[in-house]
Amino acid sequence: MGKLLVQKFGGTSLVDTKRLEAAADIIVKTISEGNSVAVVLSAMGVETDRLIDLAKAIHPEPNLREYDALVSTGEQISVALMAMALSKRNLKAKSYTAYQLGIQTNKRHGRARILDVKVEKLKKQIKKGVIPVITGFQGMNDEGDITTLGRGGSDTTGVAIAVALGADECQIFTDVDGVFTTDPRICSKARLLNQVSFEEMLELSSAGAKVLQLRAVEYARKNKMPIRVLSSFSESPGTLVEEIEEMERPVVSGISSLDNEAKLTIRGVPDLPGVAAKILSPISDSGIEVDVIVQNIGAENTTDFTFTVDQKDASSAEEILKNTSKSLGGGSIEMDDDIAKVSIVGRGMRGQSGIASKMFQVLADNEINILMITTSEIKISVVIQKDLMKKAVNALHDAFQLDKSLKA
Amino acid sequence: MGKLLVQKFGGTSLVDTKRLEAAADIIVKTISEGNSVAVVLSAMGVETDRLIDLAKAIHPEPNLREYDALVSTGEQISVALMAMALSKRNLKAKSYTAYQLGIQTNKRHGRARILDVKVEKLKKQIKKGVIPVITGFQGMNDEGDITTLGRGGSDTTGVAIAVALGADECQIFTDVDGVFTTDPRICSKARLLNQVSFEEMLELSSAGAKVLQLRAVEYARKNKMPIRVLSSFSESPGTLVEEIEEMERPVVSGISSLDNEAKLTIRGVPDLPGVAAKILSPISDSGIEVDVIVQNIGAENTTDFTFTVDQKDASSAEEILKNTSKSLGGGSIEMDDDIAKVSIVGRGMRGQSGIASKMFQVLADNEINILMITTSEIKISVVIQKDLMKKAVNALHDAFQLDKSLKA
Repeated sequence: MGKLLVQKFGGTSLVDTKRLEAAADIIVKTISEGNSVAVVLSAMGVETDRLIDLAKAIHPEPNLREYDALVSTGEQISVALMAMALSKRNLKAKSYTAYQLGIQTNKRHGRARILDVKVEKLKKQIKKGVIPVITGFQGMNDEGDITTLGRGGSDTTGVAIAVALGADECQIFTDVDGVFTTDPRICSKARLLNQVSFEEMLELSSAGAKVLQLRAVEYARKNKMPIRVLSSFSESPGTLVEEIEEMERPVVSGISSLDNEAKLTIRGVPDLPGVAAKILSPISDSGIEVDVIVQNIGAENTTDFTFTVDQKDASSAEEILKNTSKSLGGGSIEMDDDIAKVSIVGRGMRGQSGIASKMFQVLADNEINILMITTSEIKISVVIQKDLMKKAVNALHDAFQLDKSLKA
Repeated sequence: MGKLLVQKFGGTSLVDTKRLEAAADIIVKTISEGNSVAVVLSAMGVETDRLIDLAKAIHPEPNLREYDALVSTGEQISVALMAMALSKRNLKAKSYTAYQLGIQTNKRHGRARILDVKVEKLKKQIKKGVIPVITGFQGMNDEGDITTLGRGGSDTTGVAIAVALGADECQIFTDVDGVFTTDPRICSKARLLNQVSFEEMLELSSAGAKVLQLRAVEYARKNKMPIRVLSSFSESPGTLVEEIEEMERPVVSGISSLDNEAKLTIRGVPDLPGVAAKILSPISDSGIEVDVIVQNIGAENTTDFTFTVDQKDASSAEEILKNTSKSLGGGSIEMDDDIAKVSIVGRGMRGQSGIASKMFQVLADNEINILMITTSEIKISVVIQKDLMKKAVNALHDAFQLDKSLKA
């Protein structure tokens, strides 16, 4: 019995017309196996960068409404070419912009959120045997302006279309074989995961695994839409990201690592209620995202407050902190961008004791000093010195036996 | 008192971001003189060709619906960048696709005709001091598909927007100073015309003057919308194309020439009613446009039938003619692409006798043999040998004293 699938192809799978035709062949194969397909596409390879360069040539900080109108042409090119490639393969196909479909978003240009997807048109086309080919990454707001969802937003479009259509699965094609226990470039023993739960994927994504956009995973989890991460360059079965409720759970499923953050510390802030908000509000008000946050008691009723931000935001954040420190009567500001974050993630951690201490012991045995620790229900993250990242990932991968499958 | 103007910039005026910013400066100047402006843009320089190359890489004859969806991105890029450039100049501006405005066309992809332009949105924006920047060349059909108007269609969009807004003038910016008595590259004495009537412009356009798209002039004439042809590269006042009803009319206003046609002749066709239709219908059914048509009586109740088509269509037309000749019991087919068409155009010709014989005499004096003749109310065209085109244009330009202005 055929399935209804959404197949989303990213920019690396569409880097030129040859790769685009290879993606068309994957769609043909899926159809020939008796399935129905709706296709969602990103812009081709560096097309978005080309458009951004054009904008920057005119204005260093272009108007966001116009920026969205500009970059949304990238996906429009992809979908028209794909519809041509499919009709060359004797399939009926029609391209649709988010505008034509009425993918409604909020007003926030550049980082809009999808509010509503109208699928009557799509359902009608699929019923007639037509493959709809849909622009990812974009939508329209209630004033009829074009919006974009931000980088990686095409994943979210894929999931949103899949949910609205009631598809069986949303397949996300990329240039990697799927989700690995850790980054294969850092650890040669990294193993492809057959499946991973939504919450693990969420923690892995937020901890540095770049394979899926965080918001897309959230959307899929909320709507229980299975995502399969696949490579358009290989025949690998990929990784199924889904709701998992099995008995035997791996304690640690994966390790993610991230080395593009900087650590900022403000020392000797008076330890009063609301101090965290006073420190962090000016940072987030200026559009800087904060990742790990740690607060420690300092000397004499003061507190030391440390957090990490993306390296590109480090110097702005440092300036803001200096002002905050003045107004709060705090002490010195320290900035360190020579750091890395390593996280272990596993749905089996829940209710298991001793995982954290095992992690810390492994790091101690390898003479890796921990600078910050933060934990969630199914994740433990440590911030360490950047040049020790590879050593830490490999040691933890061995210690938690991630090279061995549970069922093996 | 400020005017309401539509300013349309073509691809050569937008060849890169520098030229696009120069066009923005022209708009700023127009606004600073107290006028209101709506802007219509073509795609930047070779952008449309880039898109066509992408399509051809996938399919030699791409699906027309998808082709339109693809190439319409070219103007979308222009308008977003222009809105950025205008806001950099402290003007309020908003880009609009034909889709967002609801520029309704018929279904004919690649060569659609505008049926309706909704301007409430535009009027509201102009009233608020916002400059609307609109994609030329495109529209949407009643199924919500993107359509394009064919090459040069941005002129038509400009005129259609001007008419719908009730603008005072539609200004078409290009890379030439305006409309000349003849092509300055062929005749060094060619003179810029201050004004020219709609019907002269129509005849000049259809006879080879490439400065304005024929359909745009037709649309403007029908709606009495003055068009000013201007250069975005100079300060030239340009040429005003408008309804002219003066007493003293130049007998000949301009000379146009064309050397990209081929002449096809079918000989000895039985001279029966309907034979012209039988010969030409299969030609136009296959999408080939026929220009000059001449039918002559041949020997013994047969007729010789000659017409011209674009050179790129010549061999297809020849094939079709061979079949037609077989079924009609006609004779041989001749094809000649070594020809040129030279036309003299003038609203003063109407009711004046002797113009044609003067033209033929000038050509005879210069030993230029005439292969075909066709006339309309304000135009006389001759088809001659290609290598005599320049000689003919210069001789006629002298004979009709086109280097001298009427009022001089």
